[in-house]
Amino acid sequence: MSDTRQAVLLFTPEWNGMHPGAWRLDGTPTDGAMDLAVVKSIVQQAEAAKFHGFFLADPTGFRLDIGLPGLARTGTAARFEPFTLMAAMAMVTERLGLIMTAGTTYEEPYMVARRFASLDHLSGGRAGWNIVTTGTKGVARHFGRDELMAHDLRYERGIEFVEAVLELWDSFDDDAFPRDKESGVFFDVDKLHVARRAGAHISLEGPLNVARPLQGHPVLAQAGSSPVGQDFAARFAEVMFTLQPTVAKARAFREGMRAKVAAYGRRPDSILILPALTLVVAPTDAEAQRKFDQMDALVPPEVGVELLSSMIDHDLSGHDVDGPLPDIPETELGTKTVQKFFVDKARDDDLTIRELISFMLRWGAVGGSPRTIADHIEEWVREGACDGFNVTFADMPESMDLFCAEVVPELQRRGVFQTEYRGRTLRENLGLERPASVFAGEAVK
Amino acid sequence: MSDTRQAVLLFTPEWNGMHPGAWRLDGTPTDGAMDLAVVKSIVQQAEAAKFHGFFLADPTGFRLDIGLPGLARTGTAARFEPFTLMAAMAMVTERLGLIMTAGTTYEEPYMVARRFASLDHLSGGRAGWNIVTTGTKGVARHFGRDELMAHDLRYERGIEFVEAVLELWDSFDDDAFPRDKESGVFFDVDKLHVARRAGAHISLEGPLNVARPLQGHPVLAQAGSSPVGQDFAARFAEVMFTLQPTVAKARAFREGMRAKVAAYGRRPDSILILPALTLVVAPTDAEAQRKFDQMDALVPPEVGVELLSSMIDHDLSGHDVDGPLPDIPETELGTKTVQKFFVDKARDDDLTIRELISFMLRWGAVGGSPRTIADHIEEWVREGACDGFNVTFADMPESMDLFCAEVVPELQRRGVFQTEYRGRTLRENLGLERPASVFAGEAVK
Repeated sequence: MSDTRQAVLLFTPEWNGMHPGAWRLDGTPTDGAMDLAVVKSIVQQAEAAKFHGFFLADPTGFRLDIGLPGLARTGTAARFEPFTLMAAMAMVTERLGLIMTAGTTYEEPYMVARRFASLDHLSGGRAGWNIVTTGTKGVARHFGRDELMAHDLRYERGIEFVEAVLELWDSFDDDAFPRDKESGVFFDVDKLHVARRAGAHISLEGPLNVARPLQGHPVLAQAGSSPVGQDFAARFAEVMFTLQPTVAKARAFREGMRAKVAAYGRRPDSILILPALTLVVAPTDAEAQRKFDQMDALVPPEVGVELLSSMIDHDLSGHDVDGPLPDIPETELGTKTVQKFFVDKARDDDLTIRELISFMLRWGAVGGSPRTIADHIEEWVREGACDGFNVTFADMPESMDLFCAEVVPELQRRGVFQTEYRGRTLRENLGLERPASVFAGEAVK
Repeated sequence: MSDTRQAVLLFTPEWNGMHPGAWRLDGTPTDGAMDLAVVKSIVQQAEAAKFHGFFLADPTGFRLDIGLPGLARTGTAARFEPFTLMAAMAMVTERLGLIMTAGTTYEEPYMVARRFASLDHLSGGRAGWNIVTTGTKGVARHFGRDELMAHDLRYERGIEFVEAVLELWDSFDDDAFPRDKESGVFFDVDKLHVARRAGAHISLEGPLNVARPLQGHPVLAQAGSSPVGQDFAARFAEVMFTLQPTVAKARAFREGMRAKVAAYGRRPDSILILPALTLVVAPTDAEAQRKFDQMDALVPPEVGVELLSSMIDHDLSGHDVDGPLPDIPETELGTKTVQKFFVDKARDDDLTIRELISFMLRWGAVGGSPRTIADHIEEWVREGACDGFNVTFADMPESMDLFCAEVVPELQRRGVFQTEYRGRTLRENLGLERPASVFAGEAVK
């Protein structure tokens, strides 16, 4: 690997901290998730630290996967809606990418295309779409469906949905608007393209009533790690979120995805693989461990059982917490990979339910001093394990404050992280090409 | 009427001017509709002038009701999407109400409820929802429907949709979030209400994942003037948009609507009737007339035919423009009232198609000096014809600049318009009560 490899860093907020006990720490804002002043200040802090982008995950609906008594104690439940929050954040930031989640199962492609195109124009070309098929339990009922659509069908619909959105974004060519007062021609009808689709899942006609996005297409991101999800990512994704436990596994995953991308006729560099990195940062490694312990202790045991039940899509409330994990049927939710990971962990390490809960609460989290965290990021990037990370903080604001004030400058000194944004748009900042119109070269209709 | 009656004034932008010839005037920005700097400066100008609110109409889709050659010459076609634009504007204004259109025919109630609740929180309680059933031709095809849903069915669905949204907004009581770090109770499960609806058109389960809107419910607005539309408004609307030709007709309409509102058990003052007022303002009355003439001349005749065809939902392109209007079958679109108005006008005044086009281009527009415009507004409000107006400008920026700089101060001198916002929220500024939760007094589930 070249010494000049730099990490792409996205920031994913959990406003009250990712750890379900974090909101109870003294320093945490009372409700970051619905306090605009808190949200705005955190997002601006991420931009000042030169994060490439701000990534908003979205559970879409209420977390009915967790029992109410448990949910009521986890410091979450209510939050801003992504399109409205991202558009607001576009006005108080200048360079930070704005990547947000929108689902393909319950929404209309016309509206999703329209909102992302609008966000791209409002933000000066900083929009990104994290495509999800919304496999979360409970959400189906918010949309009047009794059952979650089957996993593979959700992806079939997802492919048609994304193809429709791409065509709608390209409704107008980049130069479709002469706006010539003299001749009276506002737009050139020959540079308008009317998408017409009749698929198994998505049928619609264009055109979109928004000019072509400044980036051509907002950056496409995706997180599904099942075989079907990986295939979906290989087709479309320019940013891929993943969970990887070790450098070796991550490197193998990245090489595999790059090969899959190439098989679709795309350049391997047209996808950036960003594992999740949940951090606990403290002045010393020992203090980071103490903060972990403190947060774990703030999660009541019955809440831990509910959270684990949700994570593996199986109700564990009737089981002895000091006994082994029972047999767990494979989930139909969009969390197959997560379920398998935990079940395998319990089997491989012979863990009780209680031990698995402890493991879960720190799962994927790295704790340590700013130097320890910088070492971790540098190692993964220099070893080719990833193109960067999707960073979230287990506690707020201390871990984020220390990351921005100490980890980022350390990474910059080591040449592993940017000291200034490369360009104006998210694509420019990520080194991704601006796509041609899907209608380029077609005969005028 | 009391001398202290003041006008509620909302501002409805057509960024390039409402008149289809206006974009070709020298002073008009090249493309106000997709230029954030232009939009932001206009919205801030409206707030500086103390408009109660900024109202964003929304054609939802591409205007396929007008032929492409005509549409390409009208200075429209592409614009920002309302949720994203309004959220952005929430960040650059402080008191201005933010009323935007969202339809009940193609959207999901869960998402509409979520976005308006989020906008209300982001804006500090300034959101309003203009409820439309989206009866525009062509839009159905953007959503994969071959046919527009029938007028009455659209309203049946609309009623269920609004009822569902109200219940979702009230998912959490106002005081549902103790966020008590000591006890670990983030929200109070007894103050959460799960909507459960199974209707002919809308079935869903709550709860919403957003705290109760700051206004309780964002302000509800509606514009349908058919009998079914008026009934819908009487049930739900707190702001009603209408088209009224004379003080006498407007007064009768307002009194009729207040009676209908009372029949639903609501206070008559809980609805504000705001006729549309399209303005051409110029230093003198004569100059306003010259500006009208100039704009009319900038609309090519064939474009005028297309616009009129769209307005009455009947293709007139085969007819002699100097002959009479042919028989026009009643439209199934959401524009029955508009169609009837134009057909009646042509019959009553024995107009040719060409004459009807001229009439249409100035339809509902009032032109004159700042004093003439102030007289018009004062007369209508003092005579009880309306509670104020929904103001748009036929040309931009001159008419708006003169309105803000001269008409507003004149109205303020006469005591007809506010000199400062009354409160913080849109409800406070409009004098509307904050609604109780629809679940108030219900036994805990």
